[in-house]
Amino acid sequence: MKQFINDRDSVVSQAIDGLIWASVGHQARLDGYPHIKVVVRTDWDKSRVALISGGGSGHEPSHAGFVGEGMLTAAICGDVFASPSVDAVLAGIVAVTGEAGCLLIVKNYTGDRLNFGLAAERARALGYKVQMIVVGDDVALPDLPQPRGVAGTLFIHKIIGAMAANETNLDAVTSAAEQIARRVSSLGMSLDTCSVPGTPKEDRIKSGMAELGLGIHGEPGIEQVPFSTAEDAMARVVERLAQHVPAGQLVALLNNLGGCTPLEMGILADALRQSQLGDRIQGMIGPAPIMTSLDMRGFSLSLFSPTDDDIAALKAPVAPVAWPGYHSTGLLSITPMPTIPSDPAPKASHDPTVHHIINVCCNILLDSEADLNTLDAKSGDGDTGSTLATAAKSLLQKRSTMPLSDPATLFCSISREISIAMGGSSGVLMAIFFAAASESCSSGQTLRSSLIAGLKRMQEVGGARRGDRTMIDALEPALDAFDGGLKHAAEAARSGADSTASITRARAGRASYVSEDNLVGHNDPGAEAVARIFEGLAAT
Amino acid sequence: MKQFINDRDSVVSQAIDGLIWASVGHQARLDGYPHIKVVVRTDWDKSRVALISGGGSGHEPSHAGFVGEGMLTAAICGDVFASPSVDAVLAGIVAVTGEAGCLLIVKNYTGDRLNFGLAAERARALGYKVQMIVVGDDVALPDLPQPRGVAGTLFIHKIIGAMAANETNLDAVTSAAEQIARRVSSLGMSLDTCSVPGTPKEDRIKSGMAELGLGIHGEPGIEQVPFSTAEDAMARVVERLAQHVPAGQLVALLNNLGGCTPLEMGILADALRQSQLGDRIQGMIGPAPIMTSLDMRGFSLSLFSPTDDDIAALKAPVAPVAWPGYHSTGLLSITPMPTIPSDPAPKASHDPTVHHIINVCCNILLDSEADLNTLDAKSGDGDTGSTLATAAKSLLQKRSTMPLSDPATLFCSISREISIAMGGSSGVLMAIFFAAASESCSSGQTLRSSLIAGLKRMQEVGGARRGDRTMIDALEPALDAFDGGLKHAAEAARSGADSTASITRARAGRASYVSEDNLVGHNDPGAEAVARIFEGLAAT
Repeated sequence: MKQFINDRDSVVSQAIDGLIWASVGHQARLDGYPHIKVVVRTDWDKSRVALISGGGSGHEPSHAGFVGEGMLTAAICGDVFASPSVDAVLAGIVAVTGEAGCLLIVKNYTGDRLNFGLAAERARALGYKVQMIVVGDDVALPDLPQPRGVAGTLFIHKIIGAMAANETNLDAVTSAAEQIARRVSSLGMSLDTCSVPGTPKEDRIKSGMAELGLGIHGEPGIEQVPFSTAEDAMARVVERLAQHVPAGQLVALLNNLGGCTPLEMGILADALRQSQLGDRIQGMIGPAPIMTSLDMRGFSLSLFSPTDDDIAALKAPVAPVAWPGYHSTGLLSITPMPTIPSDPAPKASHDPTVHHIINVCCNILLDSEADLNTLDAKSGDGDTGSTLATAAKSLLQKRSTMPLSDPATLFCSISREISIAMGGSSGVLMAIFFAAASESCSSGQTLRSSLIAGLKRMQEVGGARRGDRTMIDALEPALDAFDGGLKHAAEAARSGADSTASITRARAGRASYVSEDNLVGHNDPGAEAVARIFEGLAAT
Repeated sequence: MKQFINDRDSVVSQAIDGLIWASVGHQARLDGYPHIKVVVRTDWDKSRVALISGGGSGHEPSHAGFVGEGMLTAAICGDVFASPSVDAVLAGIVAVTGEAGCLLIVKNYTGDRLNFGLAAERARALGYKVQMIVVGDDVALPDLPQPRGVAGTLFIHKIIGAMAANETNLDAVTSAAEQIARRVSSLGMSLDTCSVPGTPKEDRIKSGMAELGLGIHGEPGIEQVPFSTAEDAMARVVERLAQHVPAGQLVALLNNLGGCTPLEMGILADALRQSQLGDRIQGMIGPAPIMTSLDMRGFSLSLFSPTDDDIAALKAPVAPVAWPGYHSTGLLSITPMPTIPSDPAPKASHDPTVHHIINVCCNILLDSEADLNTLDAKSGDGDTGSTLATAAKSLLQKRSTMPLSDPATLFCSISREISIAMGGSSGVLMAIFFAAASESCSSGQTLRSSLIAGLKRMQEVGGARRGDRTMIDALEPALDAFDGGLKHAAEAARSGADSTASITRARAGRASYVSEDNLVGHNDPGAEAVARIFEGLAAT
């Protein structure tokens, strides 16, 4: 079983302890482990109507995650997919119920109805005012007199939670809850079943199929339907739900049943936006995991027909962070692309020396194509020579249109040209080198300082340092020796390039993934290219 | 591929549209689809330093989910696990950057460094003030000069987000971000790989093993380690991280890599609480999906060494709902179990008529055990007779200690006795029946009214109505006819019980799962039991 649990029996109690320790500030649990697993608000003064929900675990953040100001007063947690005991419910009632009484919000599953129901009787016999509402929002089986309670129950937790924060009249709270419950319809769809801790996963849903109308306990859906796309899946769910919602504006709660990625949930939300009911949805809750079924790769959609007061209650801030908030929807918010000033094409200018330098450098690269490819084949895909040759060809071609007499602008042009003509990481790094050199140059720095600024920026972005078996092993010493003349620079570059043949552990770039044996005795192709360029320039 | 997507190419763009439509109010996207996928704040006036992050998608809610007041100004989204283009980054920079400039927060992956780096150069050439910070919080490979950037990056988003909300000095923001980045260490562990849309899932991690030190793109971890329990897994991660954090208080960010259930994350949080560093953790972020790797069943832990100012910044409210908040931790909050008053044992009293009635009823149930079991076998597991006989035996045994002369207290005692002695749903329902009858009786109602109150409550909780093939089909007509004398009641009960033989579609209880053929011609065993009791009472 690939799950982060310790043992099957302690799953729920340990998860509750983790939750109340880590994620919410105003929760405690009753000291009743292992049988009584009840999470209560610590900031509760019993002066108002308490809201108590619960049921089997495995639906997190329901129910403990919604205990807190503005939502539930207590959550009674059973074991995974098992109803809590009568004693647990009774303990929860007694722990949080004052004179105003409490409302039990129960989802329509037999075990929960019975255990919460009997606990309510016990509490009444002890003198507590207790009411119970059974939520059945699932429309999967339209003719069933006992529809299941699923994620739509959250509308009651939230709206009645807002009301109960200021309410001492239990009957008023109960009848309001019944009102809300009647206006919620939910339906689920899943592509896979869930993994119950300690139980082998059932492989019930074949590839290409989805289950429609499922509950939240891994039970089969009412039917298997073909699955093709998220849009189609959402359209199918919306079509069924549309038969159950009245005309007018709707609020949608889009629930991740546990195993969908946020990407998928976003795509499903977009599919909902474009569905037949999309225009009628004035507000959204989620997409978020709200009432899960362990790791089930599925979703449920709950639709609610709200009044203005309901919207205000849905918007009211609450303490539980698991509540994903209510957001008004509308047109998709798209803003125009910003205008990115395209640099004016630099004015061509002539400078015979620069013209010559570019000529020399580019021809060296063209002449070295095969050699550099051979060196690169030792550690990579053998294309360094060709990549550089492509860039060289392009520069030779554009040379006559370049601002040769203005170094800052020239460096900028070279950067552009390289980023267009030269692929791969090395192209981006060279483009960054010349862009930073241009920036430095235009702020009045010397040629050497500008080139060093380029080197520094290239290192910052690329992350390589000297000794990492990259072109920097030749470029950095060359620039260090630059003030001593080109001959010194060339010697330094050559020495640096040759030193790469003994660097057997590359620490950056592609060669870092290659074994030592392949590298030893061969110069890094980038460093070799730099050395040849400086040697060529020194020889002219 | 069992995923809710439409086609591989539109995954990210549709998910972004769903996100900005559904879950956050202050976001828009640039009109640059399909190549430019940039999410920006709509409530941004460019007067302060903009914070821009991004990278490949598949890490939701990172990065678009954290765009909003108090966190990011813009998110540049690449395709799944692919760096966004230079053009996309540049568009994002130009869209949100004003005179105060912008800080690019980049996680240390080559593609992101290069593309954000070159975009920064381009933007500088256009006159924008741009700084870039490369985050490398992953300690998986301690000797790597280029540690990866993972979920610890959120400390920068949040703390610098709070700072940048009021800051116009780019250098101050940049150096603060560098400060934060140096104090974050992260490490991940996973039990499974992730499902990249359109790519077969790699089955790399064998059962019983976990990968330690993984990145967020499905790349292998640095080593596979044996996996036994959540506690052991967390201990291993904490042990490695402990070597990288300074002494003193820590803040922990517990990140769901996508595929863990909230239950598992709660258990991992509890394991962290009990780990060697548990006492030093003064605050928690999560557990929550913060920077996921699609649906990877794994977690990462990031530890941060905070100043008081950092804590204040972590606590500051933000607009993005994906931010799970900062919560101070401390001792596990456990409150004592409430004292549940145990009813004083009711005072035994004598009443020969009641004594006789109980006698008759119980003996009828004992005599009917075999018959009722046979009837039950048509629709269930054939134990209705035995269940009722057990209850009857228990009542006969306790009869002499019961308050026979006080009907309200007697009903309460019977309710208790039944809930202890009689298993299954029917035991709970009968207990509820007698508890509600007791409640009604003690408020001065007649015997018939009290029994009807019991029936009503039992129906509310159990959900069955007349015609649903349950004991109610005999009980309700019997109570309706009760005022006409026991003989009338018995006739009505018999007629009702016999009518169940022709109810071929049960709508409540276990028989609702059984096919018609098995039911026709056989009375419901519960209804039959009720009829026999009334017949027996009428005959005495």
